[in-house]
Amino acid sequence: MITKLSNLFVRTLREDPADAEVPSHRWLVRAGYIRRAAPGIYSWLPLGLKVLEKVETIIREEMAAIGAQEVRFPALLPREPYEATGRWTDYGDNIFRIVDRKGADMLLGPTHEEMFTLMVKDLYKSYKDLPLSLYQIQTKYRDEARPRAGLLRGREFIMKDSYSFDVDDAGLEASYDRHRAAYQRIFERLGLDFVIVSAMAGAMGGSRSEEFLAVLENGEDTFVRSPGGYTANVEAVKVAPPAELPIGDAPAMQAFETPQAGSIAAVVEILNRDLPGREWTGADTLKNVLFMVTEPDGKKRPLAVGLPGDREVDAKRLEAAMEPAVAEPFGEDDFKKYPELVVGFMSPVSLDGTRILGKESSTKIEYLVDPRVVTGTHWVTGANVKDQHLTGVTAGRDFTADGVLDVADVRQGDPAPDGSGPLALARGIEMGHIFQLGRKYAEALGLKVLDENGKLVTVTMGSYGVGVSRAVAAVAESTADDKGLNWPLSLAPYHVHVIATGKEVEVFVKAEQIADELSARGLDILFDDRKASPGVKFADSEVMGMPIIVVVGRGLADGVVELRSRATGDKREVPVDEIVSEVIAVAAAGGLQAG
Amino acid sequence: MITKLSNLFVRTLREDPADAEVPSHRWLVRAGYIRRAAPGIYSWLPLGLKVLEKVETIIREEMAAIGAQEVRFPALLPREPYEATGRWTDYGDNIFRIVDRKGADMLLGPTHEEMFTLMVKDLYKSYKDLPLSLYQIQTKYRDEARPRAGLLRGREFIMKDSYSFDVDDAGLEASYDRHRAAYQRIFERLGLDFVIVSAMAGAMGGSRSEEFLAVLENGEDTFVRSPGGYTANVEAVKVAPPAELPIGDAPAMQAFETPQAGSIAAVVEILNRDLPGREWTGADTLKNVLFMVTEPDGKKRPLAVGLPGDREVDAKRLEAAMEPAVAEPFGEDDFKKYPELVVGFMSPVSLDGTRILGKESSTKIEYLVDPRVVTGTHWVTGANVKDQHLTGVTAGRDFTADGVLDVADVRQGDPAPDGSGPLALARGIEMGHIFQLGRKYAEALGLKVLDENGKLVTVTMGSYGVGVSRAVAAVAESTADDKGLNWPLSLAPYHVHVIATGKEVEVFVKAEQIADELSARGLDILFDDRKASPGVKFADSEVMGMPIIVVVGRGLADGVVELRSRATGDKREVPVDEIVSEVIAVAAAGGLQAG
Repeated sequence: MITKLSNLFVRTLREDPADAEVPSHRWLVRAGYIRRAAPGIYSWLPLGLKVLEKVETIIREEMAAIGAQEVRFPALLPREPYEATGRWTDYGDNIFRIVDRKGADMLLGPTHEEMFTLMVKDLYKSYKDLPLSLYQIQTKYRDEARPRAGLLRGREFIMKDSYSFDVDDAGLEASYDRHRAAYQRIFERLGLDFVIVSAMAGAMGGSRSEEFLAVLENGEDTFVRSPGGYTANVEAVKVAPPAELPIGDAPAMQAFETPQAGSIAAVVEILNRDLPGREWTGADTLKNVLFMVTEPDGKKRPLAVGLPGDREVDAKRLEAAMEPAVAEPFGEDDFKKYPELVVGFMSPVSLDGTRILGKESSTKIEYLVDPRVVTGTHWVTGANVKDQHLTGVTAGRDFTADGVLDVADVRQGDPAPDGSGPLALARGIEMGHIFQLGRKYAEALGLKVLDENGKLVTVTMGSYGVGVSRAVAAVAESTADDKGLNWPLSLAPYHVHVIATGKEVEVFVKAEQIADELSARGLDILFDDRKASPGVKFADSEVMGMPIIVVVGRGLADGVVELRSRATGDKREVPVDEIVSEVIAVAAAGGLQAG
Repeated sequence: MITKLSNLFVRTLREDPADAEVPSHRWLVRAGYIRRAAPGIYSWLPLGLKVLEKVETIIREEMAAIGAQEVRFPALLPREPYEATGRWTDYGDNIFRIVDRKGADMLLGPTHEEMFTLMVKDLYKSYKDLPLSLYQIQTKYRDEARPRAGLLRGREFIMKDSYSFDVDDAGLEASYDRHRAAYQRIFERLGLDFVIVSAMAGAMGGSRSEEFLAVLENGEDTFVRSPGGYTANVEAVKVAPPAELPIGDAPAMQAFETPQAGSIAAVVEILNRDLPGREWTGADTLKNVLFMVTEPDGKKRPLAVGLPGDREVDAKRLEAAMEPAVAEPFGEDDFKKYPELVVGFMSPVSLDGTRILGKESSTKIEYLVDPRVVTGTHWVTGANVKDQHLTGVTAGRDFTADGVLDVADVRQGDPAPDGSGPLALARGIEMGHIFQLGRKYAEALGLKVLDENGKLVTVTMGSYGVGVSRAVAAVAESTADDKGLNWPLSLAPYHVHVIATGKEVEVFVKAEQIADELSARGLDILFDDRKASPGVKFADSEVMGMPIIVVVGRGLADGVVELRSRATGDKREVPVDEIVSEVIAVAAAGGLQAG
């Protein structure tokens, strides 16, 4: 297939779009692949749509290979199924809600667990019908608070979502593993450098969950890797708790003066000055941070988090841990409701042993602590008296937490949970997410089948997503250079960009003939037939990013044309009679079998 | 490709869905092609999705053949462009509106003129860039007051919409004709019996406009045909006005008593009794009907319509003529505001010559008349006095209308506007609609290009739509019989339905071998490998509607299998060794070239 650039609906831009923060966004807009229609909402121009379709084809092939069947649900959905599972409320402001002309509440689907569950309930009745995997490639909606980075985080986007249905846990495990393997093949075929990391299930519910992250420095997600192969999204990192210590070995609580010590650093300085004999650090202190938690139904409750003073509460880890509730730092008004708390000197306990934080304490504020705060560890913390701190405040003796909350920041070099050494941090973009949902949705919506003994059993489900429009951006992000886009052969809108330069008619005739011959061999050709300068044409070919470039120009008089590689920038002259076979050979080396 | 029915996500239903009014809806649901998700909103099961994709492929091929380029716009759109063209208001309750989390007004696109116009404005600057045709296949939304008939009138549906951009009227005419020809090919390939009829442009604006209607008795649209080839949607029929008559020939106005004459029929009866000497009919009377018109911005104004008393105001023709305003019959409260109107005896004029209806009259109510009410025609109408009518009320002498409104009902046998004889009425489903939009959108949104003389000129546009999901239903509607669906080879989800009957292993092995061989020849095969009775399998094959059916069963012992045609019901025995070549021959006869 040949497309003449003079006809193609495209214009390249010389300037970056004002809102472009990342290369994929910048170049997809500048090369005329996409345009912004509204915040986080994009239109696809012909070049972009071709890449999108190639991504979709790869996904469809790999879904078919594991026996998943394609269906398509609406984007505009009734409220009731989402009400039944609680997600109508849980999603909060993150879904687009609509009231139709008859007053019915509807939503634009962010993900379709409920609809798939109900469809299977409608059609299937027996264990003999399972296992089943269904998928759709479909437009989805989330009213993101901060849409950004072009296609990477949009409000309207294309996803492949699949769902597996099994009678038992072993079946779910097998379905999950099949999807996991299919996802590995998909991301390999997309040419992405990716990692599979443990993840949080979030608002989806369910148990086992992994993310496929494209390793990219502009990624929104941070993940960790250990020398032993442990990987996790930073939100899902589980800090390995240290061993408990004998309480008998802990020192007694003791107060000391900390006038105007408004920070952990100031307390540590006073400790090292007034209580010498050891090296005190922030890690010896216990920091207590207060949050007001809002449940999806609007109810509020206070929460105190205790963690080593050298750590901060990580906003993303906190968000993921609290989901669907939202935690915000205590404000002045919140503190006014608890006059017994001495700000800057807070403590779970006072010197006289009165419990101050915890459900059983005077404040009744729930108190959750970092996994490092195990029984027998002792800490420097506030005395709940102005300008005073306590030493020797011992977990399990002087205070007892209501539970553990693993939300402290994770740092490069922290010990890995698998004990294999220090953690390394890196950034990535979430390309896929696989979940073992278990029976949450099937229970809420009554999806049961008869088992071998004629007994009704609740079906167990998995949910598996790939960001399809996001994949276009992720590949662009991982391949673009400082000149523009740079597609692999498998995803390029056209395999070959044929450029005719100069004004001689013969050059244009020969260039078109080469384009025709390559097209006849099954390659897709973009033919730059425009009346424009060679400089403009070369620049456009670099911005647009087709992998193979053939330049027909002055050399034609000497019987040669130029063959360029967009990826490496290599150029070489090829006798005009050999150019077709040369291009076919280059395409074959890139994995594309031409006819 | 072979799909085993035992794995396919489908279940046929023995009962009609409760809300199914038409065969396509009934059978698409019963055969497991679609399921209802909400009023007017459907999910596609694997079988339905395959048909949908085949329709899309035909459309894409024909769009490519006229050089139209595919793009894709979002469904979720900002308010502003629709505000600029007035459609944000004009669409009234018919669009889904959304307020996002930041309070921005958005809509789900019902059609995308504005977005395409702005995109072309963004990219193109010169007449050299034109002509241009762009299209998308995309999910669209309309909040229909009465969604019905399954996919035929839904609230979420798939459309192909294209738009042409030209510098001048001749260019628009050519683009329009290219689309018109492409649409003819599309509907021919879909196998639909269709007519092209003149249509109203409606809320779209613009001038020349035609609809492609599939001729189907369950269609919502009524259209007319004349012996001379005139065709029009009934909403667009233009009644040919009769010749004007000399006012001098008209009789004087004269009152006569019509006590308790509450209907046209009663008045006619009195006329024939009290004023004999000629045969009076309803067509001699002038009926005046009052409407309250609501503009999209909510403003209301009264409207009187005068038409021959043997005709009714046709609700659909009135709706189309008034769009985007809405006209509703005068209610009691409306009449109270005009005490000078004598209900049941209304007239544009009273015996003393006082004008009662019309912008210049005492009531100032706008008065529009049927095209048959031309100067010099004289009528029997009310006297605007209780129990009294007038004869000889003459247009152009006793009253003058503010204009013409062609909304009377159109009847089988009415004279055709082209003068070629009587009109025939029939029903159809709107499958496509092509419009010459002209400069309405380009002007509102500032789409101009430089012409050959370097002068800015406003671009002229066309808009062309095909109902893609509706086409699936229309083909089903036109082919289904009393046993189920009945697809043409070009659209069937599978070309051949291979059925193994009985319990003998050899039968199943042979059936699968036949399926394999047909698949290897490029046919798509549905293989019924289930453990079910022959009756169930035959019934399912009839409901599901694959065009070619091969039954492998008891005959195998005698070396024969059965070849059935779903369309004709013909069955014949074929030697098992010849079945593959026989099926290939049948497929070839149906236009499908197998390998």
